Amino acid sequence: MDRRKLLQGTALGAALATPALAQTAPQVRWRMATAWPRSLDTLYGSAEALCRRVGQLSEGRFEIRPFPGGELVPALQTFDAVQNGAVECGHILSTNFIGKSPAFGFDGGLPFGLNSRQQTTWLQEAGGMPLLRAMYAKFGVVNHVVGNVGVQMGGFYRKEIRGLEDLNGLKMRIGGFGGRILAKLGAVPQQLAASDIYAALERGTIDAAEWVGPHDDEKLGFNKVAPYYYTPGWWEGSGSITGIVSAPAWEALSPIFKEIFEVAAAEQNSLMMARYDARNPDALRRMIAQGTQLRSFPRVVMDAAYKASFETFEETAAANEDFRTLYAHWKPFLDSSNNWFRVAEFTMDAFRYANPIPGR
Amino acid sequence: MDRRKLLQGTALGAALATPALAQTAPQVRWRMATAWPRSLDTLYGSAEALCRRVGQLSEGRFEIRPFPGGELVPALQTFDAVQNGAVECGHILSTNFIGKSPAFGFDGGLPFGLNSRQQTTWLQEAGGMPLLRAMYAKFGVVNHVVGNVGVQMGGFYRKEIRGLEDLNGLKMRIGGFGGRILAKLGAVPQQLAASDIYAALERGTIDAAEWVGPHDDEKLGFNKVAPYYYTPGWWEGSGSITGIVSAPAWEALSPIFKEIFEVAAAEQNSLMMARYDARNPDALRRMIAQGTQLRSFPRVVMDAAYKASFETFEETAAANEDFRTLYAHWKPFLDSSNNWFRVAEFTMDAFRYANPIPGR
Repeated sequence: MDRRKLLQGTALGAALATPALAQTAPQVRWRMATAWPRSLDTLYGSAEALCRRVGQLSEGRFEIRPFPGGELVPALQTFDAVQNGAVECGHILSTNFIGKSPAFGFDGGLPFGLNSRQQTTWLQEAGGMPLLRAMYAKFGVVNHVVGNVGVQMGGFYRKEIRGLEDLNGLKMRIGGFGGRILAKLGAVPQQLAASDIYAALERGTIDAAEWVGPHDDEKLGFNKVAPYYYTPGWWEGSGSITGIVSAPAWEALSPIFKEIFEVAAAEQNSLMMARYDARNPDALRRMIAQGTQLRSFPRVVMDAAYKASFETFEETAAANEDFRTLYAHWKPFLDSSNNWFRVAEFTMDAFRYANPIPGR
Repeated sequence: MDRRKLLQGTALGAALATPALAQTAPQVRWRMATAWPRSLDTLYGSAEALCRRVGQLSEGRFEIRPFPGGELVPALQTFDAVQNGAVECGHILSTNFIGKSPAFGFDGGLPFGLNSRQQTTWLQEAGGMPLLRAMYAKFGVVNHVVGNVGVQMGGFYRKEIRGLEDLNGLKMRIGGFGGRILAKLGAVPQQLAASDIYAALERGTIDAAEWVGPHDDEKLGFNKVAPYYYTPGWWEGSGSITGIVSAPAWEALSPIFKEIFEVAAAEQNSLMMARYDARNPDALRRMIAQGTQLRSFPRVVMDAAYKASFETFEETAAANEDFRTLYAHWKPFLDSSNNWFRVAEFTMDAFRYANPIPGR
C-alpha cells in the first residue's frame, strides 16, 4: 500500500498500475467455425471455453471468436473453409470428412477402436500425432485434439432392431466409417448436420439417427420422435474432437501463442469428456422416465459390425496410402493397449459395475 | 529479412528483436517438493512437465523448480513442508496423508471408488472440487489435480494369495484407505516411500508391496524380489495425483499466473494418464517374459474388501465431519456415474476386450 501511494501521480506509477499487455489490442484475431449448434453446451461450450482460455492466457493478445455451425459456413463445410483459409480455425468431428480421405477416421475415431484414454495415449504418447499431422499437412491444415465425447450411444430408432434383417433398408443419420459399415449390413446412411436431424426423424425421412449421447440427444429432441434408444455406439471407440487450423495461420503464430493454443486444447480434451460424463446420467434418466426404451444391440448385430469393420479397414488400407500408414501404427497399438486395459482397468470396472453401492 | 536489416542498429530494432518479457527475470520463483524418485519418469516426469509448461506460458516470469522426494524434504513429509510454508508447492498422492484427515481419501482415490474419468468429472464438473478446496483450506493449502495413474495393479507378493487366510499377518507396503481395509482383513500395512520399498521386500521385512503399475513397479525392481503380481489395485478406483500449494503463496499470485498453473495442471491430468497407458503394456509384457506370475485376486478377497471398504466409509463418515460432508456428495455421484458408465462405456469396452483383433 505504501509503495502504491509512493508511486501515485508519477509517470512510473501510471505505467505500473495496469499491466502493459492487458491494454494492448489483440495481436492475433482468429475466427473459429464450429460444426455445432449453440444449444450444445458440451461441444459448442467446449469450443467457447477453449477460445476463452486462449484469450486469458495471452492476456488478450490472441483472440479467437467461435461461431456456431452455419453462421460462418455450413457445418459440413467447416473443413473446406479452414483448408482454403476463409477462416483460420475450426472445431469438428473429423470422421464427417472421410470423403476427403479415409485417414480422417483415425482422428475422430474408428468402429470398435480406441476408447477415450487410449485415443489420447495413442496420439500424445505413442507416436500417433506425428503421423496424423503429416496426413493433415497434405490438406494445408494443422490438427489438434480439442475434446472427446467417449463411447457414444447407438442412436434413436423408430422401430426395434432385433436382428440383422432390421437393418435392411434402414435410413439412418450416421456419418464416418459407421455409415460405411452399416451400408455393408444393408442400411442406408445419411449425413446431416445436427440442426437438421430432428425434422428428418420426425417426418420419417430417416428411420434412425445417432448424434452423441444422452445429454446432446435430449437437447436435439430425438427422444420426442423415436422410442428406442440403443447402446453402444460401436462406430467410434470414442469420438475425438479435432481443432483444425489453417497451416499459414498456424505458422504465423509466435511460439508462445502456439503453446497457449496447445495447452488450452489439452485442457478441453479432458474437460469436454468430463462435461459429458457429468451431464449424461441425468439426461438418460429423464428420457427413460419420459418413455424412452433403452436397448442393447443384439449380439448378432455387434458381431457382424465387428467383422465388417475390420474387413473395411483392411480394404481401405489396401486402397489408400495414408490410411495404410496410419493403420499399420494404430492396429498394433490397439491390440497392445487392449491387452493392458483388460488386466487392471477392465477387471476393476467389471467388478465395480457388477456390484451395487451398499446402502444406495 | 529486409525489415530486419532496416531496423538493425536503431533503438526500435533493438526493442523489437527480442520480446521484452523474455528478458525479464522471474517475478515468481517457487520450489516444488515431490514425493517421487527422479527415476519415475511418469510421476516425477509429469511434475517436471508441469513446471516447464508454467515457465513457457509465463514466458519465464513464473518459475517452479521441481525436486525429487527426499531432496528438499522426505517424501512423506511433503505435505507438512507445504503446509508450514517451507516450500511453496508439492506433488503428492493425498491418500498418503489420511493420518491428517481421512477426507484426503477423496482426492487421491478411495477403494472401489471413481475411475480416472469419473474422478475428473466429479472434481471439475460435478461439484467435488469446491468441497475438496474447502477441506484443504483448513490446512492452509490450495489443491489442484495434476495427474492420474488409473487403476493400479494389486502389487507384488512373495507368496500366492489364494484366499482370505493368506492375508493374515501379511506385512504389506500400502498406504491410504487400502491399508486400513487390509488391516481389517488381517494384514499389517506399512507406509514406505518409493525409494525404500525394494530393500524391504528383498530382505523380507515386508511380504508384499504395491506402488502403481507395471512401468513404475518394474523401475522400482519389485519383480526381481517377488514372483506374484496381482490385479486389480482395488484400493483406489484410480489414483489421482494432487498439486498442493501453500495458501499464502497461491494468494500472492497474479490472476494470470493462477490461470497458467491451473491450465498446466489440467494438461498433466490428461498426459500423466496417457504416459502410464503408453508405457504399462510393454513393462507388463517384459516382466511376464522374465517370470512374473500374473494373478487376479480371488473373488472372496475382492468381495470381503468391497464390503469392508463401504463399512469403513460409513464408520469414518460417522466419526469425521469433513469426511461426512464429502462422502454425502461423493457416494451418490459414484452411484449415478456407475449407472451411466454401465450403459455405453462398459458395454463397448466389454465387447472390445472380449474379441481379439482380427489378423493379430
